[in-house]
Amino acid sequence: MPEIEFRSDVTVELVRSSASDSDVLFAARVSTQGEQTLEAAQDGHDATSRDRGLINYLMRDRHGSPFEHNSMTFYVQAPIFVFREFMRHRMASYNEESGRYRELRPVFYVPSDDRNLVQVGKPGAYDFLPGTPEQTALVRDETVRASTQAFEAYQRMLDAGVAREVARIVLPLNIYSSMYVTVNARSLMNFLSLRTKREGSQFPSFPQREIEMCAEKMEDVWQTLMPLTHEAFQSKGRVAP
Amino acid sequence: MPEIEFRSDVTVELVRSSASDSDVLFAARVSTQGEQTLEAAQDGHDATSRDRGLINYLMRDRHGSPFEHNSMTFYVQAPIFVFREFMRHRMASYNEESGRYRELRPVFYVPSDDRNLVQVGKPGAYDFLPGTPEQTALVRDETVRASTQAFEAYQRMLDAGVAREVARIVLPLNIYSSMYVTVNARSLMNFLSLRTKREGSQFPSFPQREIEMCAEKMEDVWQTLMPLTHEAFQSKGRVAP
Amino acid sequence: MPEIEFRSDVTVELVRSSASDSDVLFAARVSTQGEQTLEAAQDGHDATSRDRGLINYLMRDRHGSPFEHNSMTFYVQAPIFVFREFMRHRMASYNEESGRYRELRPVFYVPSDDRNLVQVGKPGAYDFLPGTPEQTALVRDETVRASTQAFEAYQRMLDAGVAREVARIVLPLNIYSSMYVTVNARSLMNFLSLRTKREGSQFPSFPQREIEMCAEKMEDVWQTLMPLTHEAFQSKGRVAP
Amino acid sequence: MPEIEFRSDVTVELVRSSASDSDVLFAARVSTQGEQTLEAAQDGHDATSRDRGLINYLMRDRHGSPFEHNSMTFYVQAPIFVFREFMRHRMASYNEESGRYRELRPVFYVPSDDRNLVQVGKPGAYDFLPGTPEQTALVRDETVRASTQAFEAYQRMLDAGVAREVARIVLPLNIYSSMYVTVNARSLMNFLSLRTKREGSQFPSFPQREIEMCAEKMEDVWQTLMPLTHEAFQSKGRVAP
Repeated sequence: MPEIEFRSDVTVELVRSSASDSDVLFAARVSTQGEQTLEAAQDGHDATSRDRGLINYLMRDRHGSPFEHNSMTFYVQAPIFVFREFMRHRMASYNEESGRYRELRPVFYVPSDDRNLVQVGKPGAYDFLPGTPEQTALVRDETVRASTQAFEAYQRMLDAGVAREVARIVLPLNIYSSMYVTVNARSLMNFLSLRTKREGSQFPSFPQREIEMCAEKMEDVWQTLMPLTHEAFQSKGRVAP
Repeated sequence: MPEIEFRSDVTVELVRSSASDSDVLFAARVSTQGEQTLEAAQDGHDATSRDRGLINYLMRDRHGSPFEHNSMTFYVQAPIFVFREFMRHRMASYNEESGRYRELRPVFYVPSDDRNLVQVGKPGAYDFLPGTPEQTALVRDETVRASTQAFEAYQRMLDAGVAREVARIVLPLNIYSSMYVTVNARSLMNFLSLRTKREGSQFPSFPQREIEMCAEKMEDVWQTLMPLTHEAFQSKGRVAP
Repeated sequence: MPEIEFRSDVTVELVRSSASDSDVLFAARVSTQGEQTLEAAQDGHDATSRDRGLINYLMRDRHGSPFEHNSMTFYVQAPIFVFREFMRHRMASYNEESGRYRELRPVFYVPSDDRNLVQVGKPGAYDFLPGTPEQTALVRDETVRASTQAFEAYQRMLDAGVAREVARIVLPLNIYSSMYVTVNARSLMNFLSLRTKREGSQFPSFPQREIEMCAEKMEDVWQTLMPLTHEAFQSKGRVAP
Repeated sequence: MPEIEFRSDVTVELVRSSASDSDVLFAARVSTQGEQTLEAAQDGHDATSRDRGLINYLMRDRHGSPFEHNSMTFYVQAPIFVFREFMRHRMASYNEESGRYRELRPVFYVPSDDRNLVQVGKPGAYDFLPGTPEQTALVRDETVRASTQAFEAYQRMLDAGVAREVARIVLPLNIYSSMYVTVNARSLMNFLSLRTKREGSQFPSFPQREIEMCAEKMEDVWQTLMPLTHEAFQSKGRVAP
């Protein structure tokens, strides 16, 4: 049996992208300048304060479509319970590793020692606090044991000739999977608005920490590709257009 | 600890619907008759052979939009590995039971004795054959044991005050969940075309048996609501418009 | 030639619906109560203050999916320039009268005498003021004449045996068309947030008056079907979840 | 008044793209190889016969999602009656020139002399034949006259200080507009399957010639970017996955 591996992180890598603030500007200017925009688009162009103003205006007035003419493909590794939440976002393209087509590798998520473990507050406004040392140890021990037992059961079924799609059903939600996900900036802003924490906002959100870890890494990448758009998103309270 | 339950089925119940063949007909006739259709729509109307012809024509020429002006809400109970595939279909609305907001009940899927267990053939054309008695017993034993061990770990963490969203990560993919799913006939046909078996077709599909069980039950309901549309779908090789 | 008709209104009629606040509540409670919700859903149920609180919470925290399990089909008559804007909303189903399949009727939109005609202010914050009597008369005269000339050209081409799909290209954007449009409450809220005027809001919008007339009529109908949802939408600044 | 221009063509220019057959292959291989695919994706890679086989298999079994991880942005100039059909395709991103934000230029579509003008056959199976010389001349004359009259009315209203959004309502459907449109290969295949002629097919389609002219130009571009995907689409009867 392959050796079982435990991790506490998620990884996000940019595979390919065609995304820049100037794509937003050119798309927006089709509305106002029509056929003159193409030439400008092909000439290349540096952002000016007028550009910043236009992007801020689009964000504030919720003109969302100019933020769609771009594309970012990420390769994400995370436990299945994160992917379950991720794939509820329908304005993205997904291809995930399949337990029907391949034997899954024994890599499991275990919360890191600084992951908050205790939930307080009422539904819709939960807060999470650090666990005691006993709780932290318990979570680690139970997670390691349950993952190991499940993987051994999976392996015994495979060894006996049982189909992968059947054997996998005993695997737990903390097993890692990987996927290609492609989004545009508008759909990414929607994702970020819901999957990063916004306490005290007019429209608060309370994501599970592990999907927020993915969201933060995607945001870091996106911010370098489209700094003006990111800045406008931030300044308008992180409400997606 | 609550008693652990094992099941081998999925359930599909129609919660609410506004779906009939006449909705398709009226929507299609807006194209050709404009304002005269509304009165007819409100009068009620029995399907005629001319209606059947129109629906067949829409299906054949892939005029899909008339099949969208209707709605069916189902309540589905199935294991999580089924929901994982289900929610890849983006043209539907979902609300699923949440392991963050409630303690999950110990109900687990175990393959029935007549579930095929052995996979043969090459990728893209897998076939599944019955397991030996030994394989069948092994699958049952491993599934029962792994589910029980996982649920006990979950319970111990909850008992120690660990947050539900953390404790649940050890639960396996065969635990049952439930959801509301709302679709229209066009999106349902797309789902059925991909999640029911079509061997030997020009566009074959090879769904995992458990999601096909859901699809079959949904199709049974839909067929009684929209018989002419179902008949046309069937006669055109089950390719969605 | 048929007599030419001029109108200054739009019409919106509810053809069919399956939409109530209780659908929102049941969908939301699947998350927290799982299998216990179905029975309640089938029993029927009157909204309570606890229900109002739940709907407000969903709206505030932008839990949008519970607002999707419902359906409203409208029959809309409006000029083509309104439908051009309408159909940019992609989360709806459309079937429109086709100028390829039928001869179009000579019904044209002409602005009413109280339609504001003069635009002031800068891009992104236009305001509209009443026209002078001369402007009002000019708009009416030009619109009537141009519509009549265009329809006569259309008619002469049809009379000469030219295909409808070719002859129609000379018809103006103010000719009326009709369509079936099906939406759910979430997609309707998105439409309303963008197509009704919200000056002075954090996220202002400046729709053209004629599509706003459609939006207002749809909102009137929706408000009677889902009063609690409408109230929550209103109280949260008309930002769609 | 600016000089009125008449054209009989449409233009399609590729503004930006991130689209290649290898994107399809890597996305598909995530399913079967998981984490090993990323390295290969970043190494670059030439298509082999094994690659061709995989793409054909994906197309045949309607595994559509691997065809979504790419992006093409086109700048299209065409008359409004073409854009009306185009924007019914909801799986694309659009930004069109706005008659509210700018004064429209007097460029109008007039059918070329070899455009078929006479429709024969029954609904759902129309065929189009050449017009007589008289019909051809009539179409040209009526189109030129109606376009000119409409644009003059538009201009008179603007000159009198009427808002652009009001004055434009008299403009005809054959006036040119321009847009940015962004699609991925899957959504483009869907568009092509419905907007290029497929007589005698199991699923025939009968698009209006002018949108087919757009579709053909988009297909030419796409074919050079993703030759294996195009070949597979073609060989499977042009039914989109």
